[in-house]
Amino acid sequence: MQRIKINLDESEIPRHWYNIQADMPNPLHPPLNPATGKPVSPDDLAPIFPMNLIEQEMSSERWVKIPDEVLEKYLLWRPSPLMRAHSFEKALGTPAKIYFKNEGVSPAGSHKPNSAIPQAYYNKIAGVKRLTTETGAGQWGSALSMACKLFDIALKVYMVRISFEHKPYRKMMMHTWGAECVPSPSKDTQTGRNILELYPDTPGSLGIAISEAIEDAVASKDTKYSLGSVLNFVCLHQTIIGLEAQKQMSIAGENPDVVIGCVGGGSNFAGIAFPYVAEKIAGKNIRILGVEPSACPTMTKGPFIYDHGDSAKMTPLMAMHSLGHNFVPPPLHAGGLRYHGVAPLVSRLLIDKLIEAQSVPQTECYKYALLWARSEGFIPAPETSHAIAAVAREALKAKEEGKEKTILFCWSGHGLLDLSAYDAYLSGKLKDFELSDKEIESTISAIGDLKRPL
Amino acid sequence: MQRIKINLDESEIPRHWYNIQADMPNPLHPPLNPATGKPVSPDDLAPIFPMNLIEQEMSSERWVKIPDEVLEKYLLWRPSPLMRAHSFEKALGTPAKIYFKNEGVSPAGSHKPNSAIPQAYYNKIAGVKRLTTETGAGQWGSALSMACKLFDIALKVYMVRISFEHKPYRKMMMHTWGAECVPSPSKDTQTGRNILELYPDTPGSLGIAISEAIEDAVASKDTKYSLGSVLNFVCLHQTIIGLEAQKQMSIAGENPDVVIGCVGGGSNFAGIAFPYVAEKIAGKNIRILGVEPSACPTMTKGPFIYDHGDSAKMTPLMAMHSLGHNFVPPPLHAGGLRYHGVAPLVSRLLIDKLIEAQSVPQTECYKYALLWARSEGFIPAPETSHAIAAVAREALKAKEEGKEKTILFCWSGHGLLDLSAYDAYLSGKLKDFELSDKEIESTISAIGDLKRPL
Repeated sequence: MQRIKINLDESEIPRHWYNIQADMPNPLHPPLNPATGKPVSPDDLAPIFPMNLIEQEMSSERWVKIPDEVLEKYLLWRPSPLMRAHSFEKALGTPAKIYFKNEGVSPAGSHKPNSAIPQAYYNKIAGVKRLTTETGAGQWGSALSMACKLFDIALKVYMVRISFEHKPYRKMMMHTWGAECVPSPSKDTQTGRNILELYPDTPGSLGIAISEAIEDAVASKDTKYSLGSVLNFVCLHQTIIGLEAQKQMSIAGENPDVVIGCVGGGSNFAGIAFPYVAEKIAGKNIRILGVEPSACPTMTKGPFIYDHGDSAKMTPLMAMHSLGHNFVPPPLHAGGLRYHGVAPLVSRLLIDKLIEAQSVPQTECYKYALLWARSEGFIPAPETSHAIAAVAREALKAKEEGKEKTILFCWSGHGLLDLSAYDAYLSGKLKDFELSDKEIESTISAIGDLKRPL
Repeated sequence: MQRIKINLDESEIPRHWYNIQADMPNPLHPPLNPATGKPVSPDDLAPIFPMNLIEQEMSSERWVKIPDEVLEKYLLWRPSPLMRAHSFEKALGTPAKIYFKNEGVSPAGSHKPNSAIPQAYYNKIAGVKRLTTETGAGQWGSALSMACKLFDIALKVYMVRISFEHKPYRKMMMHTWGAECVPSPSKDTQTGRNILELYPDTPGSLGIAISEAIEDAVASKDTKYSLGSVLNFVCLHQTIIGLEAQKQMSIAGENPDVVIGCVGGGSNFAGIAFPYVAEKIAGKNIRILGVEPSACPTMTKGPFIYDHGDSAKMTPLMAMHSLGHNFVPPPLHAGGLRYHGVAPLVSRLLIDKLIEAQSVPQTECYKYALLWARSEGFIPAPETSHAIAAVAREALKAKEEGKEKTILFCWSGHGLLDLSAYDAYLSGKLKDFELSDKEIESTISAIGDLKRPL
């Protein structure tokens, strides 16, 4: 029998997260207070985050202990299996060995609970009674709903209106886990009311939803705000993926030549990649590849600048690759990859050439996602399909060159709540959106004063 | 750390299925040819099943070797984890230990692929090019779609029209795995056309869909029919669940006092239960409990009679507990449990008092399913919620009596594609359907001549 799964016993689960900041050749540019233009202080962030998470955001300690209460919840589904995609390899006819870390086994179906659980925990012990957040496609909103219920914290999710209407199952998941979920813009915040007055029929956007969630959190003493990607502490929490993978690859007697993950805000990519970036910094020959949609080419075409994390300019300015905080990505099925920026940590590593970036059009993604589903069984999420397309490119190159190669990637989640994308692909209705250089120039120039490449 | 998961290494996967027929104190009544009233011969079944599966249906060999090609596909997700529900125990405040076998980890999200994979395989090696089947809620149809794609066989699924319309995601899953799926009644069969002429607005039924699938299979030389429950060989294939569980419970150092599964046609229950029935026959003190909806009380209120498996009377007569082949169960959310009969093997064991039966109303099921989702994270399928309600009853009784008790049950699948049931429960719209004795009498008397208790 061919070996397919490498399970890690619970007793082998990593007890620490890995903080890449301890090993980066160049430190991050500090986030700036948009009002003063000066680096933000912990106090600047205190209205929206609890101090324990702010400290984690600013820490450069290499190993951060995972609290027992967090580990206990992780164990509901972790360690996740490392699997070998023999059937997909066979379907491609490649000599490459393809391993994937299956993060679809979590109760919410993606890697998102890896940060939702600790965020709920740290807020809980800081005395926070209620959280707010935004969600686009719904992966983050549902993961945080579960985490808040497990730690007995109330949660209100502002869900981009068009998703709220088109993805009723995601909303029902959040209800099942006890969260409140409203379409954004809502009548519950000043931001929402203002926008509804001007544009009663707006489909909403992640930018608006972030503004509403932050306004809500700031307005209430016992409420904080939670974010599912981009931030340093989110990337930190996700490193459990790569740390487990390293142990499992070692059990399999393998060393990856290439490590691949899809990139929206950057969190699942950070999770699988950062522990391997550490190996690369230590001298190992390894390629690390982030994959984004060609319709939202933040890393491959966006400049490295100071920009806001949201369109309403409520967040600090962060040094990152960005297409501009006003950029509204086309209506890709991979809602989780529709973000104008990318995590400052990922951006910095890209600038320093420790990682590479690649963009793929969505029709190519679904071509290989379908081949995956029809050979491996599991149906990938639209976001995950981007990693799969890049894996297929690498594997086919290996075939062409007649080379052995070991590929490891993060299978970030299943697509059982996003099946309409497959239906669109199968019926020939799925289109590619390519951005012209002119469009990119225009969205970047709209950033205004902030447009100063670093 | 509390131990939550007991994984079985791939090398430990059982190599044989267990055939309870080898150990039953009383043999099954033979299935009868409805035309002649005589026991069916293999040749009677040859138009709809390949001979290798017919032989398996009639075999009383204790251990049936699992073909390597089937094992290879099982390994995509098997062995499934055995898990301890510490958080659910805590939520109930019970001294009982609750273990569950998580069958929701399969690509289709339920235990159904355990039989879909071997059925596709045996048809493939028998030279069959195409299968037909019916599906109600869609669990079986999607599992068989995946299995047929993995073995490169065409599949047509007749899906009960009301489900086809209300569960678009299930249909999309089948498409993603390459199957054809039509609403039943369809214009593709004589049965379908006749019914559509008489009742153009019919919501369809499982009985009609079975008739269409069989008519289609019989009409074509290279096509056979496939069924996802009830039959002996389906129960056989599902025993992989209980055989793995026995190994894992032994690793955990535990012996179950009670083994529980939900029952529709009986397949997941057979899977978890039959290997433990063998232990009971061998003298072990163990209770084995099948749980059905109180709105479809086949085992608890249906007589043990010869009846058809479908409403169109196309199947052989089987000796089983039945509410009558014309019984149309109320519109429960647990579509997989809406079946008028129950597997002959399960029926026989019930008559022989080797297993027990219990019925629960659906509001009680959702009460505990919600408690499960909010403590353990994973959201159970509507069918699985019936097992969970019975587990909660046992655990609360243990609490009342101050007794330790070890409970094992089959968590047959996740509910991510059935979230509307939770929404209905949370909004207070979920109702119970109780059948009066008079209603039951009337549906049974409608069976006509067949009504002769055995």
